[in-house]
Amino acid sequence: MPRYKLTIEYDGTPYHGWQRQDEFPSVQQALEEAMAEFARHPVTLFAAGRTDTGVHARGQVAHADLEAEWPAYKICEATNGLLKLASHPVAVLACEKAADDFDARFSARRRHYRYLILNRPANPTVDTGRLWHVKKPLDIGAMDNAAKVLVGHYDFTTFRSTDCQAKNPERTLDTLDVRLAEDRGTGGRLIEIVTSSRAFLHNQVRSMAGSLKLVGEGKWTADDLRAALEAKDRKACGPVAPACGLYFERVEY
Amino acid sequence: MPRYKLTIEYDGTPYHGWQRQDEFPSVQQALEEAMAEFARHPVTLFAAGRTDTGVHARGQVAHADLEAEWPAYKICEATNGLLKLASHPVAVLACEKAADDFDARFSARRRHYRYLILNRPANPTVDTGRLWHVKKPLDIGAMDNAAKVLVGHYDFTTFRSTDCQAKNPERTLDTLDVRLAEDRGTGGRLIEIVTSSRAFLHNQVRSMAGSLKLVGEGKWTADDLRAALEAKDRKACGPVAPACGLYFERVEY
Repeated sequence: MPRYKLTIEYDGTPYHGWQRQDEFPSVQQALEEAMAEFARHPVTLFAAGRTDTGVHARGQVAHADLEAEWPAYKICEATNGLLKLASHPVAVLACEKAADDFDARFSARRRHYRYLILNRPANPTVDTGRLWHVKKPLDIGAMDNAAKVLVGHYDFTTFRSTDCQAKNPERTLDTLDVRLAEDRGTGGRLIEIVTSSRAFLHNQVRSMAGSLKLVGEGKWTADDLRAALEAKDRKACGPVAPACGLYFERVEY
Repeated sequence: MPRYKLTIEYDGTPYHGWQRQDEFPSVQQALEEAMAEFARHPVTLFAAGRTDTGVHARGQVAHADLEAEWPAYKICEATNGLLKLASHPVAVLACEKAADDFDARFSARRRHYRYLILNRPANPTVDTGRLWHVKKPLDIGAMDNAAKVLVGHYDFTTFRSTDCQAKNPERTLDTLDVRLAEDRGTGGRLIEIVTSSRAFLHNQVRSMAGSLKLVGEGKWTADDLRAALEAKDRKACGPVAPACGLYFERVEY
């Protein structure tokens, strides 16, 4: 059966995450149903990352085996047409035929996430549900400096959910940068936290973002962040940042 | 009575435009009701631009007279608190005391608008309702070149709504630029049309954007755009671009 690689964008707001569940809508279900409809057989998708409830994606990657050969553009068109018809905020940005041994999850060499913060006193309006609203002014330089504490190979027990099912809490964080994405003047500052790693633990990016926010507020120093890491204790983590600010940006293979 | 100048951001989606109407929700009504609640007297707002149904604002400006003196930050906080409580996607970004003769509409020296186009085959997801989705690849350079035809002092009858109530169809367009705002790779291109003028006619920006899209598709040349302008005939205009791509960005005084 020919294997296809799909690059996928979605608004995570209406879904209980990527993974199919019996009682709740998921991105995986929306996509699998659309693909099954045009392929005329059940389709199973395997994704690079199982994003949580409310997390968005700009470049999720998944693979699927279809019974017949399809021109890749037809898979995009047919799937997107059916997703739109069903009012799903999910779209296939690109599709290509993949090698039989390509696996969206296990072949991934590096995953990229972005976390967006709107830093201003006034509530978000146009961007509601698309970023984390933080009222107090954040010190971006202090956040970026402290972030470097987490770059490297560490036991990230502090920064993973107690539900995390990975056997090994060690990960190698390649980058973790905090920077001004956009100065909107009276509209405030858009701050982005960008990070990459071969693989992340469950809730790792949101846990790091929540702790970096404490640094930005002046409540934590870089040394406090280091102490939290070294504690290897979930209780040492800052409050986890909300899902709506997180974007699964892209995957390298 | 002390006069205040407010800078306002809103998601235009749930409103029938800025202006208060009897039967439909408006941004003006949402704001006036919130301000009346904390000021404890009816409040009337006068805005720099009466945006249409579905049009967004990043920097609308309005003025209001209050019976008592308020610290400006209190006006922001109280109004935003009440707007949030009522789930209105409207926020006061800034407030300052203004001169008694300041008029948000008539004192304006220049208005700035931005029009956003998502140029890619796949449907928008995270950005639904925040931009115009155009599937066919647009020639940004051709659009920007043609746009220069409209810069200057002209009779813009072609590019205004037949409902436009301005007595004089002549306006001086200061800038009209088309450029790549963001290259999202497989996620497509975000194109922005930015324009400024002392004042715009009703539907002028969306009319210009709709005609520039025809240029981007290769259906119109710059000469066709010039002919449309010189026709001074509404029927010569391209299809008006949808409201959801338009942002009232800021006002200079």
